[in-house]
Amino acid sequence: MPIDKVLARIDETMPEAVERLMALLRIPSISTDPAYKADTARAADWLVKELTDLGFEASARPTTGHPMVVAHHRGAGPHILFYGHYDVQPVDPLSLWDRDPFDPELQDGPNGKVIRARGASDDKGQLMTFVEACRAWKDVHGTLPGNLTLFFEGEEESGSPSMIPYLKEHGDELKADLALICDTGLFESAIPAITTMLRGLAKVEFTVKAASRDLHSGMYGGLAQNPIRVLTRILGGLFDDQGRCQVPGFYDDVDELPDTVRAQWQALAFDHAAFLGGVGLSEPAGEAGRTPLEMIWSRPTAEINGIWGGYTGAGFKTVLPAEAHAKVSFRLVSRQDPEKILSAFRDWISAQLPADCELVWSEPEGSPASTMAITNPAFEAARAALSEEWGVPAAYVGCGGSIPIAGFFQQILGMDAMLIGFGRDDDQIHSPNEKYDLASFHHGIRSWARILDRIAG
Amino acid sequence: MPIDKVLARIDETMPEAVERLMALLRIPSISTDPAYKADTARAADWLVKELTDLGFEASARPTTGHPMVVAHHRGAGPHILFYGHYDVQPVDPLSLWDRDPFDPELQDGPNGKVIRARGASDDKGQLMTFVEACRAWKDVHGTLPGNLTLFFEGEEESGSPSMIPYLKEHGDELKADLALICDTGLFESAIPAITTMLRGLAKVEFTVKAASRDLHSGMYGGLAQNPIRVLTRILGGLFDDQGRCQVPGFYDDVDELPDTVRAQWQALAFDHAAFLGGVGLSEPAGEAGRTPLEMIWSRPTAEINGIWGGYTGAGFKTVLPAEAHAKVSFRLVSRQDPEKILSAFRDWISAQLPADCELVWSEPEGSPASTMAITNPAFEAARAALSEEWGVPAAYVGCGGSIPIAGFFQQILGMDAMLIGFGRDDDQIHSPNEKYDLASFHHGIRSWARILDRIAG
Repeated sequence: MPIDKVLARIDETMPEAVERLMALLRIPSISTDPAYKADTARAADWLVKELTDLGFEASARPTTGHPMVVAHHRGAGPHILFYGHYDVQPVDPLSLWDRDPFDPELQDGPNGKVIRARGASDDKGQLMTFVEACRAWKDVHGTLPGNLTLFFEGEEESGSPSMIPYLKEHGDELKADLALICDTGLFESAIPAITTMLRGLAKVEFTVKAASRDLHSGMYGGLAQNPIRVLTRILGGLFDDQGRCQVPGFYDDVDELPDTVRAQWQALAFDHAAFLGGVGLSEPAGEAGRTPLEMIWSRPTAEINGIWGGYTGAGFKTVLPAEAHAKVSFRLVSRQDPEKILSAFRDWISAQLPADCELVWSEPEGSPASTMAITNPAFEAARAALSEEWGVPAAYVGCGGSIPIAGFFQQILGMDAMLIGFGRDDDQIHSPNEKYDLASFHHGIRSWARILDRIAG
Repeated sequence: MPIDKVLARIDETMPEAVERLMALLRIPSISTDPAYKADTARAADWLVKELTDLGFEASARPTTGHPMVVAHHRGAGPHILFYGHYDVQPVDPLSLWDRDPFDPELQDGPNGKVIRARGASDDKGQLMTFVEACRAWKDVHGTLPGNLTLFFEGEEESGSPSMIPYLKEHGDELKADLALICDTGLFESAIPAITTMLRGLAKVEFTVKAASRDLHSGMYGGLAQNPIRVLTRILGGLFDDQGRCQVPGFYDDVDELPDTVRAQWQALAFDHAAFLGGVGLSEPAGEAGRTPLEMIWSRPTAEINGIWGGYTGAGFKTVLPAEAHAKVSFRLVSRQDPEKILSAFRDWISAQLPADCELVWSEPEGSPASTMAITNPAFEAARAALSEEWGVPAAYVGCGGSIPIAGFFQQILGMDAMLIGFGRDDDQIHSPNEKYDLASFHHGIRSWARILDRIAG
């Protein structure tokens, strides 16, 4: 079968594939730091040359920030868009790195060989899995697979400021039948996974104000209002004894998990004791009656991410402060609307404010959850391909965090995405000594070849 | 009557009395700043010379910090100890002063003449009211009044580190039948007052710890414990709907106000609307069913003076922090014991801590309340003298803050104190442009002359 030949070709050419990834890793494309603007452009150009050599019609498209790399192969079958990002996180603190973050090396690790460098896992190694799969495919078939667009961003690690306008302007060119996104990981570092649920996020900072200035508790204490007392009283009532958020209507647009998904998640036998034990905890602290995976993947949350007020330095000041502050965020699921949630939260606080207190609301921001319609047969095809490659059944999983590009694809281009990636929990992305397992890179390339074999025209 | 002669002598010699106060105000005796150590010693020496010239047996007594000034006149009658302090607060920010803080000036103010300088009110002007009363007394009588010890501290504004050991070592010399302390003010800037109740203070900083490191809310949110949530939940329950502190046993050692005191306080017709209005508030926020004066003078409080945890900078980080912190203080009354209260508070928190949370308790500190036994006839004598001088009935009042020296006199020397002072609410003590009304100085001297006439032998 031709797919066996493609897989064999991948195995034979691994040394060269690693060399190519290392060439890309040597370019310090730190998108958030203006000092690396030229390097970031150089990474885009490097990709354009690779893709052009491979037979894509590729170019770096200027934006007001870093360029988008867009590459087309107009073959037969459904239009498939593959997304990755070629920019990387800053490397501070450099002193915690064992070597130059932009001098990649193949090292022996406790679980096999790893490629050590900034961006090895997030996301250069991952995006190159797809490019290398295309290369082996072409080596064997003489042509690239299907009807393919590759779309590489250079601003993912700096907030993607150009993405929404770019998608709006180039929707016709980029809209496909299905998007593939390679920026996630294996489940518990071993089980191949397709992420189909991403939580949304709504966040706000607010201030409770009382007196016009800080007061001395000897003179005013017991008589004057203390905004820290007001703030703790209100936020102290944010959950009931069952861990349910008390903002009215908070669960109105939350769907229960479909039975099929629930059964699959159950089958994953998630080791929450190990997950929590790794950070010094032992007991799930969320909603009563929910499994740990539900808590992090499919249930909404309310979290106080920051709180401050009064005297917080060394020693003591017996002050009644004029104001107290909090930053609160909500992870959203199903059909929860960020604006509606934040507005209900604001009303809930306002209704509890005592006399003489004022609420100052600032920086509200939000994006809804994404749930992929796995009815597209490509999902089951990809799941079969992944199961075959990894020797264990692939799982549909959720993701507690947000991957904004998946939401943008849904909202702006009206297309669902399959999120498939090969990162592991210990890859140390965004941290010193980032690495990507050679096995992730190798099986990742083979995984894409198998998936393309099943879904490309 | 001789007292009329003394009062007339005070009136005639006011210009010279002001000159003497200004000489003391010119010495920058900032006790907390080592750069002013020599100046602080010079202020002590200046007082020793004045008192020696007046006929006192006076000396500056070395301590490990700044000297104590002790002066005796061994006459007839009960032994009376007068306390004041000759050190002053720092002057930062200097830019907010209208003139050199140590170049005193007699200025016209909206309510009459004022003496403007650091320390004019706190406490050089106040301690000199007593010295000048003694001087006029001697001018008229040819001798100093009664059996008198003057005791001036040079470390009041820097935490009085030498006071407790000094009192313990020199108890026999300093113990008197009654102490007079001149470091308080007129009630609402107009009514002469004797402070008979001082609240105590217990304070503690504590931390609630959960995970071993900060967590990302996308990955852990909903499952992992958030210590800010724990802290707000616990502190949010610190009061019931009636504003009563929920720490078990908190009110056990709190006495109800004696009816006589309650009646007197009622008669003061305290304008709490003006008091609160001055800082932008309108409604008393303390215990239901208590008058505003009770709330600040005779009821205990619990106040959260500081709270912090998680991300508090600009923008947002969706973090679940590893720990959250608070500083909480209690103003104590009656027989409340600081250690007992802090220990009950700690137990109350511990009992509410969920799994995986740890309480770290640090810097507990406290001092009990002081209530003076006004059965000593000197209190009524002083009240009559003050009423006569100021033309309005003098009041027994409470003080929401702590004046530690009064507690030290009670606990170490076993003597009650009459706290009488002539400061006004707008004196700006501890702030730029401190002043003392010339009327406070003048009537203060006359007040002490009248009081001495009634209580000294």
